Amino acid sequence: MQIKHPYLLFLGEAADQLAAKTADGVARWRSEWCVGQLRLAGCCADVGLADLDLATAYGAGARTLVLGVANRGGIISPQWMSTLLEALDRGYDIASGLHTRLRQIPELAQRAEELGRELFDVRYPDLDLAVGNGERRGGKRLLTVGTDCSCGKMFTALAIEREMKARSMLADFRATGQTGILIAGGGISVDAVIADFIAGAAERLTPTADADHWDLIEGQGSLFHASYAGVSLGLLHGAQADALVMCHEPTRTHMRGLPDATLPSLTECIALNQQCGRLTNPSCRVIGISVNTAALVESEAGRVLQEIEDDTGLVAVDAYRNGAGRLVDALG
Amino acid sequence: MQIKHPYLLFLGEAADQLAAKTADGVARWRSEWCVGQLRLAGCCADVGLADLDLATAYGAGARTLVLGVANRGGIISPQWMSTLLEALDRGYDIASGLHTRLRQIPELAQRAEELGRELFDVRYPDLDLAVGNGERRGGKRLLTVGTDCSCGKMFTALAIEREMKARSMLADFRATGQTGILIAGGGISVDAVIADFIAGAAERLTPTADADHWDLIEGQGSLFHASYAGVSLGLLHGAQADALVMCHEPTRTHMRGLPDATLPSLTECIALNQQCGRLTNPSCRVIGISVNTAALVESEAGRVLQEIEDDTGLVAVDAYRNGAGRLVDALG
Repeated sequence: MQIKHPYLLFLGEAADQLAAKTADGVARWRSEWCVGQLRLAGCCADVGLADLDLATAYGAGARTLVLGVANRGGIISPQWMSTLLEALDRGYDIASGLHTRLRQIPELAQRAEELGRELFDVRYPDLDLAVGNGERRGGKRLLTVGTDCSCGKMFTALAIEREMKARSMLADFRATGQTGILIAGGGISVDAVIADFIAGAAERLTPTADADHWDLIEGQGSLFHASYAGVSLGLLHGAQADALVMCHEPTRTHMRGLPDATLPSLTECIALNQQCGRLTNPSCRVIGISVNTAALVESEAGRVLQEIEDDTGLVAVDAYRNGAGRLVDALG
Repeated sequence: MQIKHPYLLFLGEAADQLAAKTADGVARWRSEWCVGQLRLAGCCADVGLADLDLATAYGAGARTLVLGVANRGGIISPQWMSTLLEALDRGYDIASGLHTRLRQIPELAQRAEELGRELFDVRYPDLDLAVGNGERRGGKRLLTVGTDCSCGKMFTALAIEREMKARSMLADFRATGQTGILIAGGGISVDAVIADFIAGAAERLTPTADADHWDLIEGQGSLFHASYAGVSLGLLHGAQADALVMCHEPTRTHMRGLPDATLPSLTECIALNQQCGRLTNPSCRVIGISVNTAALVESEAGRVLQEIEDDTGLVAVDAYRNGAGRLVDALG
């Protein structure tokens, strides 16, 4: 899967900014790929790009219309159809991370087929995967892991990629979820592969590379999340990570979606991830903590970061507030 | 999925006894469901049942033809087609654990549809699964886990079920793999579900039950197998096991399919399974070791079992040679 850029980001009639968080992520991390945003009447989101129609954006180079909006049920809204069909007519491919597949809407599938356009349903890997083999590969790998779901694993991997590139290091973000795939232009939704192939998918996603090249791999879930830990473990084994960054949201009172489940301590989460990671890479170690302090005022955030550093003996940063520089330093 | 019994076991033209190991398992564990075997010319396997044709077996009560034979590629051989079509005509459903799906062979799918017969492709779960929620359920659960793949997890769970039933305990074997599903008449191939739903599949498979009821859950893979550990962890979390039985093959020199990977020690494998199992059931503990000593002479087997008991402080049995009585005792 290789999605062509530049992109035109489609925001539909997003009810609020959060509904456009996929477009937000793409605009934040790949602004150089985004020529504009396309909003329908009633759209309440804005990702800070020029409002362009399909024709103008195509003229400006856009080659893929990216559905950057989520709605209830993850459906392709009937109100979007005329825009999507016109996009195909004008020469665009379409990429979507929604639950409903573009390719299962006969009108879209047929038009794309006729015109030779591609429809990317990034939530659904359509690969013939192999089971993982655990064989060591060349190159270096960093995987973001977490105490819980949705605590900054994609953000952290992207922030590290940006920092490494700023230092002229060889680095590639490797996406394992919908938004990440749209940001990277490719990847594998590892939680959507057949269970036997989780580790194999991670191996495929991060192939052998030059000795000084870093893959920055987007983690998923948590070894301590009762719903998704299998995905996290398969990804950890397949990633063969040299370095792990532990992502953490310090104000959370229970595991996401599981009101009765408490969070693990950072110490036990670090220990278990290192232990399991060493099955496929004996030098696997947690090199730092990425703390999402968005819910805290700055002074409180600073205090929490210091406490975590004192408790773990590792670098702790909020990559959003402070960037990922100290995490990259910690690799040295 | 509920496969109707009695069964007629189809052995095709099995090249040797090993090629009929699925039929062997069904005949061993559910002889009361098996009215006979159906062998084609050239078949070199024999599972010890009467050789019956389709008409005679149907008269004797058989309602499902079970494809109990594996071949290269897991295909439905063209030479089987006339038998399979005749079976449908005569009133049989058909069940298969092969890679190729019965339902994807148009001639079979169409005939089954016309006649109202069922085709069971037990390797492919066709369920709308939910993600796991980790909520505690009533009843007791025992899961077989392992140091490696293919070391006796299905056999051990079935031997414990048999022992419990002999003691008039409430017990049900819960199948998670193809052969197990044919033996149980139902189940979920957990390694074939979408990765997000591994724990959810295990929860679905082992629903709430009476306080004195035991589910005996067939484990898969190993937390220490670089290819499949994600499946093992999701199953462990979803199973919410009160008791684990660690299955082990003491003569293995490397992990199955991974020539460079050594086996974990029993001690570390016990510790990690207990630690992870306690995420969803704080009282989860390994209650014994099931050792597959098939490769050893009896005196050597006895010595190995004693050594393992000394090292781990747990009951160690070969369930094939000695039955599962001491494992059931260890639950008390």
